Amino acid sequence: MGYYRDLREYLAALEQAGKLRVVRRQINKDTELHPLVKWQFRGLEEADRTGFLFENLTDLAGRAYEGKVATSILAPSREVYALGLQCGPGEIWERWQQAYRAPIEPRLVASGPVKEVIHKGQCLLEHGGLGEFPIPMATNGWEALPRMTALLWHTRDSETGVINVGTYNGTPLGPSRTSCRLQHGAQARHHVQKARHAGVTLQAAVVIGAVPAVAMASGTKVPYGLSELAVAGGLAGEPVEVVRCETVDLVVPATAEIVLEGEILPDEVELDAPSGEHTGYMIVGADVFVFHIQCITHRRHPIWHDFISQMPPSESSTLRSVGSEGTLLSFLRKDCGIPQVKNVAFHHSGGAWRLCVIQMQDMGGVRTHNATVWQTLFASLSKSPDWPKIVIAVDEDIDPHDAESVNWALSFRFQPHRDLRVVQGRSAILDQSAMPHSIATSYTAHYPESSVSPQGASAMLLDATRKWAYTPVSLPKKEYMDRARAIWEELGLPALKPRVPWHGYDLGVWPEEFRELAELGEKGEFGAVAQRLKDWKKPSAKE
Amino acid sequence: MGYYRDLREYLAALEQAGKLRVVRRQINKDTELHPLVKWQFRGLEEADRTGFLFENLTDLAGRAYEGKVATSILAPSREVYALGLQCGPGEIWERWQQAYRAPIEPRLVASGPVKEVIHKGQCLLEHGGLGEFPIPMATNGWEALPRMTALLWHTRDSETGVINVGTYNGTPLGPSRTSCRLQHGAQARHHVQKARHAGVTLQAAVVIGAVPAVAMASGTKVPYGLSELAVAGGLAGEPVEVVRCETVDLVVPATAEIVLEGEILPDEVELDAPSGEHTGYMIVGADVFVFHIQCITHRRHPIWHDFISQMPPSESSTLRSVGSEGTLLSFLRKDCGIPQVKNVAFHHSGGAWRLCVIQMQDMGGVRTHNATVWQTLFASLSKSPDWPKIVIAVDEDIDPHDAESVNWALSFRFQPHRDLRVVQGRSAILDQSAMPHSIATSYTAHYPESSVSPQGASAMLLDATRKWAYTPVSLPKKEYMDRARAIWEELGLPALKPRVPWHGYDLGVWPEEFRELAELGEKGEFGAVAQRLKDWKKPSAKE
Repeated sequence: MGYYRDLREYLAALEQAGKLRVVRRQINKDTELHPLVKWQFRGLEEADRTGFLFENLTDLAGRAYEGKVATSILAPSREVYALGLQCGPGEIWERWQQAYRAPIEPRLVASGPVKEVIHKGQCLLEHGGLGEFPIPMATNGWEALPRMTALLWHTRDSETGVINVGTYNGTPLGPSRTSCRLQHGAQARHHVQKARHAGVTLQAAVVIGAVPAVAMASGTKVPYGLSELAVAGGLAGEPVEVVRCETVDLVVPATAEIVLEGEILPDEVELDAPSGEHTGYMIVGADVFVFHIQCITHRRHPIWHDFISQMPPSESSTLRSVGSEGTLLSFLRKDCGIPQVKNVAFHHSGGAWRLCVIQMQDMGGVRTHNATVWQTLFASLSKSPDWPKIVIAVDEDIDPHDAESVNWALSFRFQPHRDLRVVQGRSAILDQSAMPHSIATSYTAHYPESSVSPQGASAMLLDATRKWAYTPVSLPKKEYMDRARAIWEELGLPALKPRVPWHGYDLGVWPEEFRELAELGEKGEFGAVAQRLKDWKKPSAKE
Repeated sequence: MGYYRDLREYLAALEQAGKLRVVRRQINKDTELHPLVKWQFRGLEEADRTGFLFENLTDLAGRAYEGKVATSILAPSREVYALGLQCGPGEIWERWQQAYRAPIEPRLVASGPVKEVIHKGQCLLEHGGLGEFPIPMATNGWEALPRMTALLWHTRDSETGVINVGTYNGTPLGPSRTSCRLQHGAQARHHVQKARHAGVTLQAAVVIGAVPAVAMASGTKVPYGLSELAVAGGLAGEPVEVVRCETVDLVVPATAEIVLEGEILPDEVELDAPSGEHTGYMIVGADVFVFHIQCITHRRHPIWHDFISQMPPSESSTLRSVGSEGTLLSFLRKDCGIPQVKNVAFHHSGGAWRLCVIQMQDMGGVRTHNATVWQTLFASLSKSPDWPKIVIAVDEDIDPHDAESVNWALSFRFQPHRDLRVVQGRSAILDQSAMPHSIATSYTAHYPESSVSPQGASAMLLDATRKWAYTPVSLPKKEYMDRARAIWEELGLPALKPRVPWHGYDLGVWPEEFRELAELGEKGEFGAVAQRLKDWKKPSAKE
């Protein structure tokens, strides 16, 4: 089977898998759409979250729209993310590694569905420009404009010619004008800077509604200089078919739903509209670039692609955590050469960047040395001055994604005075714990240098691995739990979702004499056990 | 309505509420019972956990038992705990406060159901002594003996005459002999010490299968000198009816299922059998007292009462956390005089003692001062040298019981270098992170004084409250979420279990100009918003 031909084939596959809710009832895109889908992130378990397709949309002005809105379709859960890669949830990282090892360059084709309708020149606004599309409002009551979330910005490095594809959101500022939110460090921001330096404008093509592989590559921190279109080909296992743009020197996926072509003027910076952020808080007072649209091409009956973001967990926190995990895992294992790192988990509660759990594993039956755990913890701060902020190392028997499991490790495998380090000199972008919010700061002044915190913000590293052998985990051995599970199912009790640990196991301290006692107990020889306890030579009780 | 007359009336109420699973199929008490019920703690959400009543029991020797086993009936969840108090889950703390304010002394009656069958003197073993009852094995494969878990030990202070009731588990060591696990600090241990000092034995009556109010009082750290029988009366709202014992100078609840009467010899200490502990690990090598049974009385067709303990979450971690929360909340609010403390949550993952989250509240609209937060954090260490170990202060809008909510606060309201203190000189009972386990240590040497840690173990205090005003939470305002929830239900989507926050709210930074923009946005006046942004006077973008 080949990869999805277009977004519509992917949506059909989602529906087939029971992972798409199609809403045919009329929905107001400005007041109802985002709050409705937000509920699944604040009120359902991850396994029950799905994509949504809205077929009948209206707005505050009472208009009807020809187009539909697809939202939360890429990453309502890791399970759905894996569907987008046509793999299982446990294979996601390997698929990404494969894409980096063997990227596949896109293939240029003469035309494609995205050219079915073309508005340009004097006809640019014949259908209302951007107003043709049902762009939803997101953080209702706080934001002031609809929000364009799943925008894949294609821009070209003027020196290397490589096309970068990055996901940056923005707001519509008129029928042919939008904002473009480029945080510091965003790769497209380098392109703006190069254009400013050269005294030219920056051409851009904004793609809405590409296949998952393109959207996932765009939304991940792919190393600068490697085109996300080639990484997307690697993810899909076949080249992305691209067509030339009408008015700019760029190519875009041929089966995309919508493409906006235009340019950014590097020196034109406006105040940004208030924006809900992935930290769980609003941002106000940021600067923003402006994008001028020259041409719009789209499929007939276009589907507007939308992400659910802001307060975590959200669709974008899943996208970010999968990406950050792959990046840091690869860095620690390959670049730092620490094969004892088994897994990395970025928690939604930290906006998928701040809170990170690193799972260590034994190598050839040898426990990871404490020094290697610390090498790993300090190394985890090497990819960014900003993230992660709280890093916890755990053993192989802890589920790094499960906050309860991690807290169990902190409670009984960690001593604060011995197993904790605080590292200052960190930045804290969008993190209001570092300094009070003010309009003059926001995106730019993210390294607190005021009297509040002259040494910047900080990170905290915690070693919650066992430092020596422990007694066994106090749960029945596996064979008892297996047998009981069969009885459980025979009795028709509710379906189990086991959490680790769900059976006891040896952790190094299990003296022979107690092993013998337990074996007598397993045979029901309780009298013999009692006699042995009575006869034991032991120290007397101390008060 | 009066309080439950006996355990059987309570079980009927549980079944009526859908909170009791009755298993009529034959179950092996030694190999199947505990693993089966353990599954609900490792594989079901708390809301789906219930009590279990096993009606048809056998054992490793192939025997059949007349009696039944009731387990996990007191605290499979907070909801069920509240049923035992005949109140709602949110009223538990108030019920406890009421019981302390107005304890009700027990009422002595001439006889009761517990006297239906009496085995004593030469007839003590006529039905096999302890062997008559289906006492389950618990941590199968590691423990060596069946485990008596829900034992309510009644002993009398020789000086004041007050009867103490405490829950201490033990193992059967023969038909008329058991162990009695008294940790350091256990109130009955004081009685043993006084008896040793006076050169006498300590009389004891062990109750199995009392009403919930008695079992809950017994299982809670009630201040020494106040009888748990009176506290149980206060919880029930009416006196507990008690009868005199046959062979010891004690009284016990008249409707109990089983009573074991006998004595502890203060100088008789044996090696304990291996024991699964609430920390999630086995304990081996501890000393233990021995109890000699002189008389057994019981109801016809007795129900053996059993707790599910060991690896948290468990029934006993719920019992402990409810008790610890009430104790610490009362201490902080009343004894320390900090009314800003709203709630205290002890997490299962810390065995209900190590990990504690304290929720602060505003008083009369005034934010709690940082110094009060620190007063609270340090004061939280005042009740015990051992617990809590990790203490996190959060704001009123954080759910202190929800690890994800707490982690969100740590990610964005906490700076490690500024908001963290480590306190050494703590003990670490049963906590193997403090020092390697050895048979010579275990229960007694819980303050690590070796070269590993000459200053003892440590606690960690974290202030995850906001230090200043924040921008609003990036979720749609409440009215939008309410409206969307109505649509959600109209569409027949899965039932929601909302987690806080589920709507956006103001946290102090929401400048007037942005409020106006958002209001324009709510009316759909997007053109006016775009114009205002364009016209804004702002600082130029900095790179």
